[in-house]
Amino acid sequence: MFFQRLLRQDARGQIVKQYKNPRPKDWASICMRPVFERASLEDTISKIFEDVRINGDKALKSLTKKYDGIDLANVMLSKEEISELASTTPPDLKMAILTAYKNILSFHRLQVPLNLKPYETSRGVVCWQENKAIEKVGLYIPGGSAPLISTVLMLGIPARLAGCSEVILCTPPSADGLVNPAICLAAQLVGVSKIIRVGGVQAIAGLTFGTESVPAVNKVFGPGNQYVSAAKEYARRYGVGLDLPAGPSEIMVIADETAIPAFVAADLLSQAEHGPDSQVVLVASKTEVIDKVQREILKQLKDLPRREIVIKALENSFCVLFKDVKTAMDFANTYAPEHLILSVANPEKIAGQVINAGSVFLGNFTPESAGDYASGTNHTLPTGGWTKAYGSLGVDDFLKKISFQNISKDGLEGLASIITTIAEAEGLGAHARAVIKRLNFKENI
Amino acid sequence: MFFQRLLRQDARGQIVKQYKNPRPKDWASICMRPVFERASLEDTISKIFEDVRINGDKALKSLTKKYDGIDLANVMLSKEEISELASTTPPDLKMAILTAYKNILSFHRLQVPLNLKPYETSRGVVCWQENKAIEKVGLYIPGGSAPLISTVLMLGIPARLAGCSEVILCTPPSADGLVNPAICLAAQLVGVSKIIRVGGVQAIAGLTFGTESVPAVNKVFGPGNQYVSAAKEYARRYGVGLDLPAGPSEIMVIADETAIPAFVAADLLSQAEHGPDSQVVLVASKTEVIDKVQREILKQLKDLPRREIVIKALENSFCVLFKDVKTAMDFANTYAPEHLILSVANPEKIAGQVINAGSVFLGNFTPESAGDYASGTNHTLPTGGWTKAYGSLGVDDFLKKISFQNISKDGLEGLASIITTIAEAEGLGAHARAVIKRLNFKENI
Repeated sequence: MFFQRLLRQDARGQIVKQYKNPRPKDWASICMRPVFERASLEDTISKIFEDVRINGDKALKSLTKKYDGIDLANVMLSKEEISELASTTPPDLKMAILTAYKNILSFHRLQVPLNLKPYETSRGVVCWQENKAIEKVGLYIPGGSAPLISTVLMLGIPARLAGCSEVILCTPPSADGLVNPAICLAAQLVGVSKIIRVGGVQAIAGLTFGTESVPAVNKVFGPGNQYVSAAKEYARRYGVGLDLPAGPSEIMVIADETAIPAFVAADLLSQAEHGPDSQVVLVASKTEVIDKVQREILKQLKDLPRREIVIKALENSFCVLFKDVKTAMDFANTYAPEHLILSVANPEKIAGQVINAGSVFLGNFTPESAGDYASGTNHTLPTGGWTKAYGSLGVDDFLKKISFQNISKDGLEGLASIITTIAEAEGLGAHARAVIKRLNFKENI
Repeated sequence: MFFQRLLRQDARGQIVKQYKNPRPKDWASICMRPVFERASLEDTISKIFEDVRINGDKALKSLTKKYDGIDLANVMLSKEEISELASTTPPDLKMAILTAYKNILSFHRLQVPLNLKPYETSRGVVCWQENKAIEKVGLYIPGGSAPLISTVLMLGIPARLAGCSEVILCTPPSADGLVNPAICLAAQLVGVSKIIRVGGVQAIAGLTFGTESVPAVNKVFGPGNQYVSAAKEYARRYGVGLDLPAGPSEIMVIADETAIPAFVAADLLSQAEHGPDSQVVLVASKTEVIDKVQREILKQLKDLPRREIVIKALENSFCVLFKDVKTAMDFANTYAPEHLILSVANPEKIAGQVINAGSVFLGNFTPESAGDYASGTNHTLPTGGWTKAYGSLGVDDFLKKISFQNISKDGLEGLASIITTIAEAEGLGAHARAVIKRLNFKENI
């Protein structure tokens, strides 16, 4: 269909697909994300939701027994348990979390929006807008082999800055029936109201309906496997808001001859280790750049702990060659990556051309993992091309804007003919009459 | 279950259900919105989507023939047709639209957010955030008997202020195969790129996949019947963003003895005329207020053009009596209305207690219909209790926030131990190595 250099399928540890100067008409199909067969989860999910809705905590416990093999006396951790666990966080990890917290807090503090002050749109017509925190939010934090400590900060910090009154964290219990100490520490730091040691679909069901221990929330945030993602979608039917559409992680690196191949390879590998369904994309200005990066990938792969996952992800990945950076940027905006690294000379020059991306990393010393943990930006980002419609998670996602208006009798007289004329044209006579009734009103009756 | 004064079911033209000081534990069930049997539309919708995906404009034309009974030569209106139609708008309606445009524009201009300027979160670590317009947006405007002229302004103005490069308006053709002149005028005013005279599910399908005439868009906005709403949900599967969850319209009026019963009745009726599934709620501090408003409703109903619709909506509606305004406000926040009118003495005093509402109207001379058309606020608001999680539509909904970071070698050294320590704790070794590779790098190699 278009020029494509396909490496041998047994080239394990390489980015298999390569395209050379593909024409714009072929970009859309190159940018299609890998599709994985998803089982229909609706049945499983609706049964679990029904169980939790009817049986509350009892259901959460029996489902945790069934899926996690853990017998819980209480689904909620007590304040004492949280403090005790948090205090066992290793000192170096504690220090790392505190510093990350500081950076993320300082950048997110800038995001807190101001209210729109009362403004007279026409004489006697005053409008304003207030940002109000969503009252109750749920943060879902995956646990198991990789407890996402950093995600507690990335969700909890904007929730606190927004002023949410209840912040409920759900995470699966660890093998000892407790919760990872660093998750407890981070939760304390951001001021989480409650930690519920329940994971999976049952956690989302608990946050949806509420149980004896879990408050029902207005919006759920956080990553999860396909069960958790499907459960979040399911929760919408019951009036629970969702953060943003996010699936497998992805990265695009645009590299010219000033890029350091070892760094580019390391960045691609760091994203590939998320899961076999992750996709990494290298956009290069020279064939040699691609070849050097591929060699580096092979070299660095050797002793990576999550090697087998990485190799599978590389099979879903691709390289593209474009002679000029302008075309590379157009292609990047078509792909609309979650993460975009600009490993080019003078990256500031082209950063302004980014239209569709979640988080952008400039230059050779800005690895994607810096944004995951410590630079200050949020790591909760849309994937799968959704950056065309949605941006990075931030304080705004924990707020909602309420409009207000206060109109004087004179002000209403000024607006009257606008309202009645358009309302009549729209066939909404009672809308017009709500104004007319007021105009005809005599103060002294 | 709780104290409830039920009027005779044949009390046509009255708000049938009345509650007196219900206890907080019963509020949730009182606040449940009326449930209507929804047919499963999935089959119909998936067939139409498939048809439009494969056959493009040809499908749009044949579906318009089938559902609207109109034979279209072209689905798109030409620039000449738009100008010609717009020029036939009656002068008074033209003037009303221009003035409404001015007010809405001036209030929405205040909403345009500033970018976050580069900020050093720690030494050598610079982060910033840019607001980028969503490139292509689709505005769905219902037509037929009630062409929603005002909705063109409410969606088109923030789209333009955000800077969306393509703004595609879809609306069903009128009986003559054209489009309502005032819709054309409003579309010209806000700078819509294209008007497509196609409505229903097929319009949403066209905006999803793109056809010869309709560009595929990144996000779809606008109200619609249950078919259009379900089609918007369906479009999400193909990566199209949605504005906000909105169903039947609703209003709550909080009225004390300073409220003018005739005004309150007029406001309740104006919302009830939207459709038989609309809900209107009167929260009053005195039984007499309820009785007076009910009498006014009967009186005003007599010559309302949409009388039968209103009567049905009143059957789904209710009154509540609370002795004090504080409890009334708590109840309002539990109900979380789309529109909230505060017809009480000193409404400014309690406006600050509003947590969950879409748009709030203060005092006796601020009818809800002012916000629908002319005050300057947006009339696109969440319904059905969704104001607990989402706010009013505004410029933000046409933008997305992209994060940027630029880290120096020194800056990365400062972050290194944070990143590697947390990454290792999360089991993500390759994330740590992307930093370590850079630290070990010798400039002169």
